[in-house]
Amino acid sequence: MLVGKVIGSVWATRKEDGLTGLKLLIVQPGLTETDRPGQPAFVAVDRIGAGVGDHVMVTTGSSAASILEGKRLPIDALIIGIIDSVDTGSG
Amino acid sequence: MLVGKVIGSVWATRKEDGLTGLKLLIVQPGLTETDRPGQPAFVAVDRIGAGVGDHVMVTTGSSAASILEGKRLPIDALIIGIIDSVDTGSG
Amino acid sequence: MLVGKVIGSVWATRKEDGLTGLKLLIVQPGLTETDRPGQPAFVAVDRIGAGVGDHVMVTTGSSAASILEGKRLPIDALIIGIIDSVDTGSG
Amino acid sequence: MLVGKVIGSVWATRKEDGLTGLKLLIVQPGLTETDRPGQPAFVAVDRIGAGVGDHVMVTTGSSAASILEGKRLPIDALIIGIIDSVDTGSG
Amino acid sequence: MLVGKVIGSVWATRKEDGLTGLKLLIVQPGLTETDRPGQPAFVAVDRIGAGVGDHVMVTTGSSAASILEGKRLPIDALIIGIIDSVDTGSG
Repeated sequence: MLVGKVIGSVWATRKEDGLTGLKLLIVQPGLTETDRPGQPAFVAVDRIGAGVGDHVMVTTGSSAASILEGKRLPIDALIIGIIDSVDTGSG
Repeated sequence: MLVGKVIGSVWATRKEDGLTGLKLLIVQPGLTETDRPGQPAFVAVDRIGAGVGDHVMVTTGSSAASILEGKRLPIDALIIGIIDSVDTGSG
Repeated sequence: MLVGKVIGSVWATRKEDGLTGLKLLIVQPGLTETDRPGQPAFVAVDRIGAGVGDHVMVTTGSSAASILEGKRLPIDALIIGIIDSVDTGSG
Repeated sequence: MLVGKVIGSVWATRKEDGLTGLKLLIVQPGLTETDRPGQPAFVAVDRIGAGVGDHVMVTTGSSAASILEGKRLPIDALIIGIIDSVDTGSG
Repeated sequence: MLVGKVIGSVWATRKEDGLTGLKLLIVQPGLTETDRPGQPAFVAVDRIGAGVGDHVMVTTGSSAASILEGKRLPIDALIIGIIDSVDTGSG
């Protein structure tokens, strides 16, 4: 899963069916501040209460599409975790 | 989902079955003008009335293929929203 | 969908089952000539009669795998359209 | 499958349902040390006991999501092997 | 499908279930020698007898996962053809 920082939100009135009511956040990918500028920001669905400034884990691709039992949504990025801490050094 | 700007359209008479009648728009990826030149433009299916100059959200990969109930189309990019506003700064 | 130009063909006698008889073309991605050199060329299945010099639309990923009713082929790129014209400027 | 080195772990209390109890490791992609800095680190689920310093193979995309019989998890990266040795030179 | 050259093999005793006995080869992507250094090498499953030095076609993503009837393996790269010849110039 990709790691990034929430930097904002997106509003879109005209959308594909089934997407109404979904919270759409902008994520800048990168594990550390120095990673960030290189990779383009993107939009991810959030259902767990992430907000601007949070460091999050994002699942991308069709794994994100099966969040509603028995129904595939036309989405390809879902925030799956709000990071408490990152430990680079011990197993 | 990827964010980009619609910059044109594509016409193709000879196509795989099931794609006739689909509107095919060219999208230049990037959240802001400065992101744009780096990433290659691509073609996305549009069903919600997007046009040149619109800023849009695009779902890519097989999540885009299940737009018709019970049938997978051989497509991998679908415009899912026409962006009203982007707010980079508040939760 | 990715846009590119057909630049050649590939022949492979030893292949995974189910791929015999499929036409395999080499595609150089990029909407315009200037895009081209950056992105690596790749192989796509063609069933609609594309040839060297044609500008084509290519679906990549598992959306390409479901081209035979009820059977998934181990492929990840399918030429879905031969481009007649590209219009970058009007809706 | 992507090859990389485990460089740390991630903790996240607030997560999507179904992810509780999964071990989340940070992987720096690259076959050799020189590959490493270029590609961004990412998070992968581990069920086979990998630890910091291990060289691992990672499956990415929706192939990673079907690890529980009959249930798709919202994940897109799974450590599938801890590498004993890499032989670049003989068939 | 991606084109590349087999440059070696990988051994891993500790693996996810269902992967025992699969042949794992290292592929350096790129159609020609000059493409090669840019793109990172990766691991692909081989069932058709490829060896070091062979030029191969590789299917990546979840299309690679359905190689066993009715069962999805946690893999995302499968060698689907050993290239006899590449013709860049005629249709």
